[in-house]
Amino acid sequence: MEFELTILGSSSAIPTSIRNTTAQVLNVLGRYFLIDCGEGTQLQLRKHKISFQKINHIFISHLHGDHFFGLIGLISTMALQNRKAPLHIYSHKKLEEITNFQIKTLNIFMSYKIIFHYIDTKKKDVIFEDKTLTITSFSLKHRDIPTSGFLFKEKEKPLKLIKDKIDFYNIPIKERQGIKDGNHFISKDGKFIKNSELTIPAAPPRSYAFCSDTSYTEKNIDILENVDLLYHEATYANDNKARAKATYHSTAEEAAILARKANVGKLLIGHFSTRYKNTKQHTSEAKAIFPNTFAVKDGEKYTI
Amino acid sequence: MEFELTILGSSSAIPTSIRNTTAQVLNVLGRYFLIDCGEGTQLQLRKHKISFQKINHIFISHLHGDHFFGLIGLISTMALQNRKAPLHIYSHKKLEEITNFQIKTLNIFMSYKIIFHYIDTKKKDVIFEDKTLTITSFSLKHRDIPTSGFLFKEKEKPLKLIKDKIDFYNIPIKERQGIKDGNHFISKDGKFIKNSELTIPAAPPRSYAFCSDTSYTEKNIDILENVDLLYHEATYANDNKARAKATYHSTAEEAAILARKANVGKLLIGHFSTRYKNTKQHTSEAKAIFPNTFAVKDGEKYTI
Repeated sequence: MEFELTILGSSSAIPTSIRNTTAQVLNVLGRYFLIDCGEGTQLQLRKHKISFQKINHIFISHLHGDHFFGLIGLISTMALQNRKAPLHIYSHKKLEEITNFQIKTLNIFMSYKIIFHYIDTKKKDVIFEDKTLTITSFSLKHRDIPTSGFLFKEKEKPLKLIKDKIDFYNIPIKERQGIKDGNHFISKDGKFIKNSELTIPAAPPRSYAFCSDTSYTEKNIDILENVDLLYHEATYANDNKARAKATYHSTAEEAAILARKANVGKLLIGHFSTRYKNTKQHTSEAKAIFPNTFAVKDGEKYTI
Repeated sequence: MEFELTILGSSSAIPTSIRNTTAQVLNVLGRYFLIDCGEGTQLQLRKHKISFQKINHIFISHLHGDHFFGLIGLISTMALQNRKAPLHIYSHKKLEEITNFQIKTLNIFMSYKIIFHYIDTKKKDVIFEDKTLTITSFSLKHRDIPTSGFLFKEKEKPLKLIKDKIDFYNIPIKERQGIKDGNHFISKDGKFIKNSELTIPAAPPRSYAFCSDTSYTEKNIDILENVDLLYHEATYANDNKARAKATYHSTAEEAAILARKANVGKLLIGHFSTRYKNTKQHTSEAKAIFPNTFAVKDGEKYTI
């Protein structure tokens, strides 16, 4: 029942010797959702033994190079590996133009299809949905660059049957799905059995939200409310508050204020400016506001 | 008096967890010439503490992604670092179109100029020359993809003055450059001093040649003759000889045959296919023909 985030890159615009530019992968029950794809992402995936074939959906927050320069290399490698499954890319529509230009100009033989899903970065929108998961994009605030955050949220799971009770009342198989969905049960001899006697609640749906790059903004608090895990950029610490504002980035403290206001479970901060030698300042400033904060490192995994 | 090659990437088309795609940097007396720029090159440069500002010249052998997908990231980082010095890129002219498209579409603010030098990949051509160094491009054989090799060769250096003799004959400063260039000397009292009494030969000019990607071809033997160090691709070992031919790549043995015929000093092989777990087979097959062969690893340095 995996719901696990792997950090592939956590530097801001410029990579360092220990931090790649932004990329993460969220494993939801064995499906890998790639979020951003900075240069070197395919190398990081290899290092962390994540098969490219398990990635069918890629989400690009915005078209700054540090969030997607690794995409063409990954696309190209997938073609060399003779991938057949279609690849879904969710982003601003301009990415389709850029990618197609590269594929065409370089004559890359595409063994598979890329299906682009344009994100309207001005609004909240469900961009992916299946039986177990909903992915919602929402608008971030990053200069005039169309930028999205992403919320990954499991759907409510059906109730769990209590096996002993099911056996005791001899409940036929055809009735069981209904009971999982909340029905009560009336036995052959007319006895009314309340659903709560037959089931236990399922594990609560898990959720992860990604916010990078962005200024501090409260406009998404309703979306972020109660998420289990929030990744929020913290390019700067408080010594560069003015710069954060001017460049439409956030400080670690601002990320923590948002985490507290949205009542999230855990806060991850990343996208650190290369001007900082370490993340001590970010961490202490954020923890003062929201104690359950962690400054990520490349290669780390966070399980919900 | 550096003349040192650093291997930044040595995998073939697909990077692995220990090998990036092709990139190398040649340090000639403190100037860094970048040869190819596969994805992750800027990360490798950082890891090996090579300042981007020391790179003024980039040579791209051909427009397969594994040889230049890292270029736009590097260009972009240089702009973020507010580079002022122009950057010279030597390649097939199509790269200018690709690069300009990316810069324009992404609205990258360029703090410096890129000067493109088109390579005519069909012929041998001096593409760079200054007081100490000549760089020559030559044609490789890689399908119908215009592909160049590069020869870096120091110029003949002036003779070295023997200080004791210069003092003994009291040779005026204004005469000394002529003596370095081979002149004899006539002293005030009319005595003829042969140049060979006043000088010793300079160190012989050093040279490095890069050949990747290419089928086996003897057409460049005159260019490669007697180079101190030759890097030649060896994508395959002899178990994949037919595949090497079909894909316009070389085997390690072919690289060694060429090294022997051209009488080079040392052979480096690289660009290994990901189908090989290690390079034992390549090395043993090449060494059987040309003993002074080394299979490169990322991060290695070779000094001439």
